[in-house]
Amino acid sequence: MPREIERKFLVADAGWRQAVSTSLRLRDGLLASVDGRKVRVRCLEDRAFLTVKGPREGISRDEFEYEIPLADGLAMLDHCQGATLEKTRHLVPFAGFEWSVDEYAPPLDGVILAEIELPAEDAVFARPPWLGREVTGRDEYRKITMLRARLARA
Amino acid sequence: MPREIERKFLVADAGWRQAVSTSLRLRDGLLASVDGRKVRVRCLEDRAFLTVKGPREGISRDEFEYEIPLADGLAMLDHCQGATLEKTRHLVPFAGFEWSVDEYAPPLDGVILAEIELPAEDAVFARPPWLGREVTGRDEYRKITMLRARLARA
Repeated sequence: MPREIERKFLVADAGWRQAVSTSLRLRDGLLASVDGRKVRVRCLEDRAFLTVKGPREGISRDEFEYEIPLADGLAMLDHCQGATLEKTRHLVPFAGFEWSVDEYAPPLDGVILAEIELPAEDAVFARPPWLGREVTGRDEYRKITMLRARLARA
Repeated sequence: MPREIERKFLVADAGWRQAVSTSLRLRDGLLASVDGRKVRVRCLEDRAFLTVKGPREGISRDEFEYEIPLADGLAMLDHCQGATLEKTRHLVPFAGFEWSVDEYAPPLDGVILAEIELPAEDAVFARPPWLGREVTGRDEYRKITMLRARLARA
């Protein structure tokens, strides 16, 4: 069964910007969720993906991802009004791993999170100098929590 | 955008059994739902499908369906404990349309519903003699409602 093993961090400074290899614009929509399972549609440049994630267990969760026609993905995003997020994903290679530094668009402008996908829960990786505090599994850095907080302040 | 246009009926008697062309065993799991959208995984004999349905609008709703590897489908069903349903789907041709007569397994044993998918909302179709009362859109015949009622009685 495919597993997603991911750790999430704040960034300490903007040093990552000098090391970006690629930047992708993407738009995510939360189609539905229940009991920690969630189904997301993602449109990324001219491709679209449907992703089913199981409940989080520590830093891991089951994840199934399928590419779907872009037209389907865009139509599904239309269904998710109020539960979509746009961000630019910057890919930043460091010491044999590829970091994703996600820079969110409004309403989450100003939010920047760095993620690394690991091949195993105990995989060893080097921390780049720009990396900040780890926030893996922290509720206040879940996208839905950040979105609700931001909208409540608006 | 793909649309599902479907009407659902009770059966008046067992006359449909003589006209069955094929019977398929299938197992459905509700992965997640919100605001009338829902995402379902279906394992049908040796195939599996992931289906995203938009909110119901009269007798229509958006529907996106993708075939996925059977192993993925079975793993997802395992995630849906308590929200899975098994049924035998009998295909019954009548007057140019193919009816699906769904005979549910426990805990919904005894429930039999006939469905027809239409090419347009105003499509004309002939009613087979065994067809009972229409229940399209009736909340008490939604699977989740029937399941809750049955479990409450158990």
